[in-house]
Amino acid sequence: MTTSCPLTINGDRLNRHLADLAQIGRTATGGIDRVAYSAADLEARQVVQSWMEQAGMGVRLDAAGNMIGRYEGSQPHRPALATGSHIDTVPNGGCYDGAYGVLAGIEVVRTLRDQQRRLHHALEVIVFTDEESSMIGSKAMAGRIVPNPGYYSRLDGSPIQTCLAQVGGNWNQIASAQRRPGEMLAFLELHVEQGPVLETAGVAIGIVEGIVGQRRYYLSVTGMARHAGTTPMALRQDALVATAQIVLAVHQIAQQPGDQVATVGWLEVLPNVPNTIPGQVNLKLDMRDLANAHLDAMMVDLEGKFREIAAATGTKIQIQPRLRNDPAPAAPRIQAAIARVCQDLGLSSLSLPSRASHDAQEMAALADMGMIFVPSQAGISHADTEYTSPEQCALGAEVLLQSLLKLDQLYQTPPAKVIALASTLSPGCIGQA
Amino acid sequence: MTTSCPLTINGDRLNRHLADLAQIGRTATGGIDRVAYSAADLEARQVVQSWMEQAGMGVRLDAAGNMIGRYEGSQPHRPALATGSHIDTVPNGGCYDGAYGVLAGIEVVRTLRDQQRRLHHALEVIVFTDEESSMIGSKAMAGRIVPNPGYYSRLDGSPIQTCLAQVGGNWNQIASAQRRPGEMLAFLELHVEQGPVLETAGVAIGIVEGIVGQRRYYLSVTGMARHAGTTPMALRQDALVATAQIVLAVHQIAQQPGDQVATVGWLEVLPNVPNTIPGQVNLKLDMRDLANAHLDAMMVDLEGKFREIAAATGTKIQIQPRLRNDPAPAAPRIQAAIARVCQDLGLSSLSLPSRASHDAQEMAALADMGMIFVPSQAGISHADTEYTSPEQCALGAEVLLQSLLKLDQLYQTPPAKVIALASTLSPGCIGQA
Repeated sequence: MTTSCPLTINGDRLNRHLADLAQIGRTATGGIDRVAYSAADLEARQVVQSWMEQAGMGVRLDAAGNMIGRYEGSQPHRPALATGSHIDTVPNGGCYDGAYGVLAGIEVVRTLRDQQRRLHHALEVIVFTDEESSMIGSKAMAGRIVPNPGYYSRLDGSPIQTCLAQVGGNWNQIASAQRRPGEMLAFLELHVEQGPVLETAGVAIGIVEGIVGQRRYYLSVTGMARHAGTTPMALRQDALVATAQIVLAVHQIAQQPGDQVATVGWLEVLPNVPNTIPGQVNLKLDMRDLANAHLDAMMVDLEGKFREIAAATGTKIQIQPRLRNDPAPAAPRIQAAIARVCQDLGLSSLSLPSRASHDAQEMAALADMGMIFVPSQAGISHADTEYTSPEQCALGAEVLLQSLLKLDQLYQTPPAKVIALASTLSPGCIGQA
Repeated sequence: MTTSCPLTINGDRLNRHLADLAQIGRTATGGIDRVAYSAADLEARQVVQSWMEQAGMGVRLDAAGNMIGRYEGSQPHRPALATGSHIDTVPNGGCYDGAYGVLAGIEVVRTLRDQQRRLHHALEVIVFTDEESSMIGSKAMAGRIVPNPGYYSRLDGSPIQTCLAQVGGNWNQIASAQRRPGEMLAFLELHVEQGPVLETAGVAIGIVEGIVGQRRYYLSVTGMARHAGTTPMALRQDALVATAQIVLAVHQIAQQPGDQVATVGWLEVLPNVPNTIPGQVNLKLDMRDLANAHLDAMMVDLEGKFREIAAATGTKIQIQPRLRNDPAPAAPRIQAAIARVCQDLGLSSLSLPSRASHDAQEMAALADMGMIFVPSQAGISHADTEYTSPEQCALGAEVLLQSLLKLDQLYQTPPAKVIALASTLSPGCIGQA
């Protein structure tokens, strides 16, 4: 740094940019429809690129369409620090999820530039491609792309080749988006919590301990569809009665002490007729925790319970693992840096897992990873009612700035060993006998 | 009767007619598609009418399209005995449900005619219009038609006026289909059980104690749809967890001693997304029992349990009564007559409730009512795999013949008082605050 005058971000400016970006893709209900590769996404990318350039960054697009703004450091030979997030949304999503992290990153650079300062390290602000659906941007940067382009084709049928070309990427060159080891020291993402923990605790800042691992299982419960009038209770094999016991077993296991969550969010009954005993129920089970071993143990417990339920109800329960994202722990020294910043700024903070997926989980394969959360009103996200106050947004960005300044100092003296925290993902469907 | 030579039905002839009628509306999978008012239904009506006429019956159609074959008795001033059922089917139904009762009735008349015999009373064989959907035929005969024709319009949008005209009926005259009190002494319907009770017990004949009352309730469980990852277990209001408890409470109450059944056969989860906690679940509860008081008591119990579940899960549970069919008990002397016939023929029998709806439940408002059941293989009905063996079909028809002969004797000497067992139906939707 060229001077020791205290730096602070401009909260009004940040919130103005948040409001401006929220004009792009705005729906009638006030939500944001800026699904990846849509016209609104393309327009938002142009606007954000111009803001990056105005803040003094060089901007490049990689083959995955990731937009990388780079504010050079004072010591050009050093690896980069990085922040960022995404500007695509779910259909009728909110204006904070993703966009907030990107715009706060740009605000940090703007603050440095206003004071003609530079970090020792280059600072990158990254807009990752399509976080909400495929996470193709951060996965490509981490070198974890499935070679089959069909895997990334869109719900509307658009091939990924066309989609990437629209955002300046190139499917045939996508391997080139992978960052080299050591090119990036740390990735720090600022994001709205998307859950109620911080608001419920009345705390300003969340220090993410890691991004939970996620398992998804498809279950199929087969009983016997029979007439709901003429079949006495004792002769029934009711797939929904078995399913009710499954739902409660899942809920009970997740309520044991710990940070795990488990949910049956999707369920279909067949034939789904009021006067027919359900013959089959299909359901989807989602489980998340910071520890793979705990997720394994939960599933072993559940499988035992499912066997008991199947025997008691005369049904057959089949389990098919469909998704496995391993946990991505946040680097302890980044967590410590954020905690110290909160202490210095007099802000209340809380350590918590991120139970939602973020681009940061992919970056953990390349660099030390950390995340800062700000409260989400009523825990709502992926909805037009998603809200974080301007004051909370400004505070989070300030914590981002101060944490990056601290990391810039920390990484001046490399630790005994930089541990790249590996996280392996098995995308797609895993069949089970 | 003109002679005492023992009468017995011709089982081969009956089964041949069953097989012939099953050619009309036959599907590729061997099921029967003879939905009321369809071309197949119209064709089957013509064939059945010709069979009635060949058996020596006079045939008339009433304003509800009911086809009434009448074999006059030896004492013309006496009221009629009646049997019958329906020849319409559910889509891809079986060839026994309904058709069996009609064709066995015709076979009984054919048997009488072969021996030049007549009962003291006229014997009617009735084909009721559209049993499977609206039961408009038997309801019209019982004088329980809702004045609004829209109530009877078909799923495909056809107005009931057109439908009835196709089968020789007339919506504007439908009140004329109501039978006068005392015009019919008894109605005895032969039907496949459509459940597994007789087969499981290894019994040839079911003596129906009555047709159960049916209640249907629509339940709506409202929780809070939130992110399944970011919402800790303790902060959830999971509508599906509450619903699982409801499903188990319903199952438990129905498993208490007694003949009641209760089923949740239809259920929808909203928004039904794997990573979103269910915010709402709608479900349909069907309960049946021979006693209204018991149905009332079950619902009082359940409402108490639902209040506890709502409180424990932070959800709101709304209950809307949607259907109420009161029970229709079978006349004790008809049950006794069937039991005596089984004894005389050396056939095993079992008393059981009918937990499915039948035209007989409407006839109970006009006359003494009884039903005879024969076993359904694996309890299957409303499916192309519905099956009752030719031997079982012949036995059931024999029991029908002998029971009608016994009733013909019984009703020679009227009882102290013929009790018309009233059954009230509230059709359509009943709103509740």
